[in-house]
Amino acid sequence: MSYYNFSEEKDLPQEDEHYMRLALQEAQLAFDQEEIPIGAIVVCKGRIVGRGHNLTEQLNDVTAHAEMQAFTAASLTLGGKYLKDCTLYVTVEPCVMCAGAAYWTQISRIVYGASEEKRGFTSKNANLLHPKTITQKGVLALECAQLMKRFFENKRG
Amino acid sequence: MSYYNFSEEKDLPQEDEHYMRLALQEAQLAFDQEEIPIGAIVVCKGRIVGRGHNLTEQLNDVTAHAEMQAFTAASLTLGGKYLKDCTLYVTVEPCVMCAGAAYWTQISRIVYGASEEKRGFTSKNANLLHPKTITQKGVLALECAQLMKRFFENKRG
Repeated sequence: MSYYNFSEEKDLPQEDEHYMRLALQEAQLAFDQEEIPIGAIVVCKGRIVGRGHNLTEQLNDVTAHAEMQAFTAASLTLGGKYLKDCTLYVTVEPCVMCAGAAYWTQISRIVYGASEEKRGFTSKNANLLHPKTITQKGVLALECAQLMKRFFENKRG
Repeated sequence: MSYYNFSEEKDLPQEDEHYMRLALQEAQLAFDQEEIPIGAIVVCKGRIVGRGHNLTEQLNDVTAHAEMQAFTAASLTLGGKYLKDCTLYVTVEPCVMCAGAAYWTQISRIVYGASEEKRGFTSKNANLLHPKTITQKGVLALECAQLMKRFFENKRG
């Protein structure tokens, strides 16, 4: 394990790491189906209320990102469209679409793993989220990034 | 009819107005169901391949915007996730989420009616769309805006 990752783990609550591991399991499901391996979990007061993994190829639908499915699932579970008191865990920095969806949910917190320099929402405008939403990046960033790297290497190979 | 609207009609192709009227019909369906009245149509080479209207209340789902549903429907109809050679007609300027979704579809053209100063994507960053996407605003803007205004007046009343 690299120093970078070690230093992360020391600073972050164990809970975030626990849920990010579950998001990584979702990402692995996408990987196994030859989808870009991104996974997401929505947690509300210690309970998982939504999960999802990228399904854009299978569903032939660019809107089928992990986060979008997790948001929809969480709203169904909670019976309301706002996700106040919820945290989204997602393995890779959300894109503009998913950040825009997060805005509408008014979700309390977003925790992501690997940054996405090209298509992550922060590359366009870091203020796309709801003013109430707190973000935390870099949780298990290395594992999250490695899964993506492995996917694109396999594609090229 | 106001001068403003007359001047619009003189400048714009009749085709855009025709499809915007269909998008307005979709918006009216939303209105009739007490949803924020926004409607969308996706047209590919003269054929309507997707349509949708806002259903966020009924579905308890913030992602159920008219455009999102129209994109998903169009992808299903066309059997591919990219919407090249397609035009989205939508009665109100897309939000960040819908602009982000449009980015992924690589849609050729977006025509919208009324501008949305507060939550329209151009208020955040006018470059959220795919570089290949051409936009046209103001088609039947007055009708599109009036339907929204009527909705919010009824709500307040």
